Amino acid sequence: MAPNRAIQATRSDGERSRRAILGVAARVATIHGLQHLSIAQLADEVGMSKSGLYAHFGSKEELQLATIDTAEEIYEQEVYAPARATPPGVDGLIAMLDIHLDHLRRRVFPGGCFFDAAASDLVSTTGPVRDRIVAFQDGWSALIRHHLVAARDQGELPADADLEQLAFDVTAAMALAHALLVFHGSEEALDRAARSVRLRLGRA
Amino acid sequence: MAPNRAIQATRSDGERSRRAILGVAARVATIHGLQHLSIAQLADEVGMSKSGLYAHFGSKEELQLATIDTAEEIYEQEVYAPARATPPGVDGLIAMLDIHLDHLRRRVFPGGCFFDAAASDLVSTTGPVRDRIVAFQDGWSALIRHHLVAARDQGELPADADLEQLAFDVTAAMALAHALLVFHGSEEALDRAARSVRLRLGRA
Repeated sequence: MAPNRAIQATRSDGERSRRAILGVAARVATIHGLQHLSIAQLADEVGMSKSGLYAHFGSKEELQLATIDTAEEIYEQEVYAPARATPPGVDGLIAMLDIHLDHLRRRVFPGGCFFDAAASDLVSTTGPVRDRIVAFQDGWSALIRHHLVAARDQGELPADADLEQLAFDVTAAMALAHALLVFHGSEEALDRAARSVRLRLGRA
Repeated sequence: MAPNRAIQATRSDGERSRRAILGVAARVATIHGLQHLSIAQLADEVGMSKSGLYAHFGSKEELQLATIDTAEEIYEQEVYAPARATPPGVDGLIAMLDIHLDHLRRRVFPGGCFFDAAASDLVSTTGPVRDRIVAFQDGWSALIRHHLVAARDQGELPADADLEQLAFDVTAAMALAHALLVFHGSEEALDRAARSVRLRLGRA
């Protein structure tokens, strides 16, 4: 049994250190940019050798994709999971956006929103890394629409409400809050965005 | 007279080529990032030697600051000057924002808005280059507020209108339009932003 146990211990040590590395990578990427996340730089940040990191991630792209997996897990835990406590509709949408703003305020990722930061960083690229960020943003937009459709169907919004326009307006408030927070350190922008959403959804 | 004329010709050739270089620099910076604008890369783009470019700009920072001067001149000519044709107030604000959206649509800068692109790129920096971008954005925000104050004073907005909130909301629409244009190539976002501004200012 000893050899197996040794192998298991190694695997789970490996898994733990992989998770620790990716936790650092997800945070660092929001400051220096996902595009500039390199095995060499990350090795420095976590105090490991480059060859040690290469054992975990074969390439920069693999590291970037694994970092996105981790960022998605963090966002699920910090935003999506608590937001599901409020059922779909105007209240559900406000809850989700408030929790998103709160995760910015709490600096869950030091550089703001992992996905907004990555999108800015990947503007002029193509490939699987950018595709994953687009897919995440599409999922986020779909969720906004899901809340708006529920709100309309429940009679919380007029039957002829322009849901695409509403989705644009609440997303715009989130985008500017993020930009002002990361560029000017303005936490007031988070409050403005929360108020903007309420004004637009008739809950001011 | 001949020597003087020769010197003048050299000066004005120099001025012309400096302007041509900066025109390229302002456009290139919106794609590759102002932070990554290097004399070596720009020399490649304009087909000049690195030493030729060093004769124009002593350092990367000097090049970046001169590029911002040029981008401001372009923005003045393409947006601010035509916008001044409409007097301050709701119409003046809508005109300015429409012309801004139109300059995005016409790809005056291929990477969208020079100043939004630069701000994303300079998030984690400090120094005179970032300060100039902040100063431009502050000027833009002050102009929005100037229109809103005029609108309120002219009775186009309620006397107790929350002008800071209105400024936030119209700026948010511009920020998201820019982000969706550069990240997804979405021109529809420009129309959404124009509609957003009208809805918010009671002109839908």
